[in-house]
Amino acid sequence: MTKEQVTALDLPMVDPLPEATQKYFDICQEKLGLIPNVLKAYAFDIDKLNSFAAMYNDLMLADSKLTKLEREMIAVVVSSINKCYYCLVAHGAAVRELSGTPELGETLVMNYRVANLDPRQRAMLDFAAKMTEGSARIEEPDRQALRDVGFSDRDIWDIASVTGFFNMTNRVASATDMRPNAEYHSAHR
Amino acid sequence: MTKEQVTALDLPMVDPLPEATQKYFDICQEKLGLIPNVLKAYAFDIDKLNSFAAMYNDLMLADSKLTKLEREMIAVVVSSINKCYYCLVAHGAAVRELSGTPELGETLVMNYRVANLDPRQRAMLDFAAKMTEGSARIEEPDRQALRDVGFSDRDIWDIASVTGFFNMTNRVASATDMRPNAEYHSAHR
Amino acid sequence: MTKEQVTALDLPMVDPLPEATQKYFDICQEKLGLIPNVLKAYAFDIDKLNSFAAMYNDLMLADSKLTKLEREMIAVVVSSINKCYYCLVAHGAAVRELSGTPELGETLVMNYRVANLDPRQRAMLDFAAKMTEGSARIEEPDRQALRDVGFSDRDIWDIASVTGFFNMTNRVASATDMRPNAEYHSAHR
Amino acid sequence: MTKEQVTALDLPMVDPLPEATQKYFDICQEKLGLIPNVLKAYAFDIDKLNSFAAMYNDLMLADSKLTKLEREMIAVVVSSINKCYYCLVAHGAAVRELSGTPELGETLVMNYRVANLDPRQRAMLDFAAKMTEGSARIEEPDRQALRDVGFSDRDIWDIASVTGFFNMTNRVASATDMRPNAEYHSAHR
Amino acid sequence: MTKEQVTALDLPMVDPLPEATQKYFDICQEKLGLIPNVLKAYAFDIDKLNSFAAMYNDLMLADSKLTKLEREMIAVVVSSINKCYYCLVAHGAAVRELSGTPELGETLVMNYRVANLDPRQRAMLDFAAKMTEGSARIEEPDRQALRDVGFSDRDIWDIASVTGFFNMTNRVASATDMRPNAEYHSAHR
Amino acid sequence: MTKEQVTALDLPMVDPLPEATQKYFDICQEKLGLIPNVLKAYAFDIDKLNSFAAMYNDLMLADSKLTKLEREMIAVVVSSINKCYYCLVAHGAAVRELSGTPELGETLVMNYRVANLDPRQRAMLDFAAKMTEGSARIEEPDRQALRDVGFSDRDIWDIASVTGFFNMTNRVASATDMRPNAEYHSAHR
Repeated sequence: MTKEQVTALDLPMVDPLPEATQKYFDICQEKLGLIPNVLKAYAFDIDKLNSFAAMYNDLMLADSKLTKLEREMIAVVVSSINKCYYCLVAHGAAVRELSGTPELGETLVMNYRVANLDPRQRAMLDFAAKMTEGSARIEEPDRQALRDVGFSDRDIWDIASVTGFFNMTNRVASATDMRPNAEYHSAHR
Repeated sequence: MTKEQVTALDLPMVDPLPEATQKYFDICQEKLGLIPNVLKAYAFDIDKLNSFAAMYNDLMLADSKLTKLEREMIAVVVSSINKCYYCLVAHGAAVRELSGTPELGETLVMNYRVANLDPRQRAMLDFAAKMTEGSARIEEPDRQALRDVGFSDRDIWDIASVTGFFNMTNRVASATDMRPNAEYHSAHR
Repeated sequence: MTKEQVTALDLPMVDPLPEATQKYFDICQEKLGLIPNVLKAYAFDIDKLNSFAAMYNDLMLADSKLTKLEREMIAVVVSSINKCYYCLVAHGAAVRELSGTPELGETLVMNYRVANLDPRQRAMLDFAAKMTEGSARIEEPDRQALRDVGFSDRDIWDIASVTGFFNMTNRVASATDMRPNAEYHSAHR
Repeated sequence: MTKEQVTALDLPMVDPLPEATQKYFDICQEKLGLIPNVLKAYAFDIDKLNSFAAMYNDLMLADSKLTKLEREMIAVVVSSINKCYYCLVAHGAAVRELSGTPELGETLVMNYRVANLDPRQRAMLDFAAKMTEGSARIEEPDRQALRDVGFSDRDIWDIASVTGFFNMTNRVASATDMRPNAEYHSAHR
Repeated sequence: MTKEQVTALDLPMVDPLPEATQKYFDICQEKLGLIPNVLKAYAFDIDKLNSFAAMYNDLMLADSKLTKLEREMIAVVVSSINKCYYCLVAHGAAVRELSGTPELGETLVMNYRVANLDPRQRAMLDFAAKMTEGSARIEEPDRQALRDVGFSDRDIWDIASVTGFFNMTNRVASATDMRPNAEYHSAHR
Repeated sequence: MTKEQVTALDLPMVDPLPEATQKYFDICQEKLGLIPNVLKAYAFDIDKLNSFAAMYNDLMLADSKLTKLEREMIAVVVSSINKCYYCLVAHGAAVRELSGTPELGETLVMNYRVANLDPRQRAMLDFAAKMTEGSARIEEPDRQALRDVGFSDRDIWDIASVTGFFNMTNRVASATDMRPNAEYHSAHR
């Protein structure tokens, strides 16, 4: 594992990494073929890394009526509005992979309104876009629009949480000039 | 502990709460005189509650060169831009309490640019505001402006993380119409 | 009456004040417990003070189908959009006092869309918000929406006039860094 | 004097007008060749008409180091940002008349940044534009920029007051669909 | 033909002009009483001049179900949003001329929403405004709204093309500080 | 050559195509491996096709001190701000091809501010971005900033023209829901 700087901040990883962290990174390397740079960026402080990873894993991988692809779609649409380079590269690749449709990943990066979506996914992304651009204007009719296409209140919580999460990580990544792993660019094209 | 709905979503708390959660809530009640509604909102799913609380506690309470007051100041300024009612009420009260200057809490809710701040805190809040309004425009000179008033790279990470976090919670709170505990309104005036 | 500077401009009050002005200020002191700083700010020129006070009194205190509270609610919502510190402090206090509900004052300062309002007051504040944010987009359907909840054409004039007025005073206060009387902060909490 | 409706609101003028008002309108007719529709619009309530006229006359006609042309230039620039039809027509004509340069009136209606202005007037209009677009961002350096080109604190008050006033009238005119007198269109071309 | 600079760029016209260009300019002078400065601006490179003129003539003068006046109306509304001085002066004059209603030209410069338009023309200008302000948000219902007031798909193409064209020329004119011929200002008042 | 619809408008290509057009399309097919859909979209009217193609070829392919890559870089940055799907797909591919650096194409699609650019190209793209977002605010210092990094007045014209052109085509493409050729997506990755 290289230790080159992955953000504009001089915050080297704890060295050596605690055993559990090293194991987690080894699993990433094995499963994904890389250790996501965001994890390296947080690894200057293991508590911060752990709380970030726990929230990430709960939101993106734990049980939910939203598919993993749908959660990645939200990630890309939020990141497109916020123009977050790191997240667009990393999660654009995830949409390409999970959907098996490279064009979908590209379209969500560029303008989700032209993507060919069913009404349920379109409503989900419209809600995520409104939350990102002007959350203070969200009111009951916005939630009802999600219920009208079949989402439960629990689903709405999940949509809101994933949308909120990427509004956090987009900003942290842009504020620190976080750089994505080079492998994402050509993956799943 | 009442179990009335604290958001617009019908997501009742796990009942009974796991022992550890109940204990955490009891400590809140004892120390703060209330259980923050945001915790009740997350308590429909204990994993989500735990990952939220872990990140919150790390960012707002763990060791940092930013004082607890400064982290709360960031919380209020971000929430003012996003017009998040829950966070303005709860963290406005925190700024009033920690600063001992009720006017400071009110001013940051209304327009931080008129607050009487030293250059270091002003730079910190300008960075938080820019991250909130247009993070994709942050570049090296923005980070350097923080270093120029004495912040280290670790401090910049902390400023960015707290700012990012409230851009998440503001959106989740607004999207779910989360309601603050009534006690905050009159506290520390 | 102290004569400390209440704005960033060096414009001392006429000294001594004309008898009628002194009497007006004495009445303010007696009735309100303070002389609003905005009046002191204008008192470098008695004609300007008088024309300001005459318009203020006509709009906020004279006969209208809008209650005094409703006019103050408009004042706070407009000032929230314009982020005017002086007006939020002073008129936030007025809403707390006139409504007897401190939370209402705070909510309108923060985000009127989450306030618990009847449809008539909500329509009134939506009109005020649209006038403040983009008056050139107001058209007949916007006026009709007010008529539909029971407002007369005269009421619409009054809503428009109060909204316009605070778009003036917000800007004058911010442009001159006008400072509110300290007494407002803790009043009616 | 015709009594046709000059706004979208059904608010006929007091009939007959009080003697003083009638006299004022007669003077307008004699001196200007017309009674400005804004005065007719307010004439449903003589107190409102009087407080409006008093403030207008103080700001636009009373003694000031700003020339009458400069005050009209501010009026047009503010009205251009707010896209107020009534005020652009009426005050655009005033700039054409007072400057003797029809092109100046047109340019300020369209984009004051391309007008051929001396640095003092440009600074004045930049301040008015910033006050109109985002008054909460005005700080001491903005006022100092005016002092640096020769404006006194009293002049700054006058710039701020005129700018504020048209932010009021623009909104009242747009909200009520106020229509300018037809005579303005071709005047002073 | 004078050769004074018509933009802020030092790009003199080809001298002498090719015969065909000179002839084209002579026809302009004869028919319009002037050679539009935009043509002089492009005349430093005859290929660029020709491709600009060909597109302009196709869009504004060739056969279309949109009248020449309607195409000029679009030009003015787009230019008003973009605050392009050159195009507002030149095409404002064209609307005054072609409509025979000077007020219409002025109104479209200032705020097309207050113009007295039939529903077809209003829909056309609303589409042009939306294309100018946020083309990525245009979707099928926007096109359908045009069809609903009687426009064919070919007409929609023409509306889109003219709107697009002025979004190009507005930006080129502003970026180069292009100056309109003085004759436009007083024409057709 | 297929004749499937490439926009949301029902405007079939002239059939048969004139000989010269057919020849042009054949050359495209041979050289590029495809006929760009934008050309098919315009081919319902050969005059419109020709004037579009002439301007495109002059701007993007004719002699200029801007390299073809630089012109494509401007195309992508403008299209990113306008979120034009067609142009991002087509010109993103061109940047990938001409630069030989796939990441550069992706970065410009996402956020050009994080791309690794020399000061000259950065200044060029900043100018293009400002022209796209608010051309009315461009003034002499903006042009001077280009001269300061070595651009001539002729170069400034070219930057302005290319930027203007994509502000046109972005809007036409979005307004008509123009769809890019599928081949672009995977090309030059």
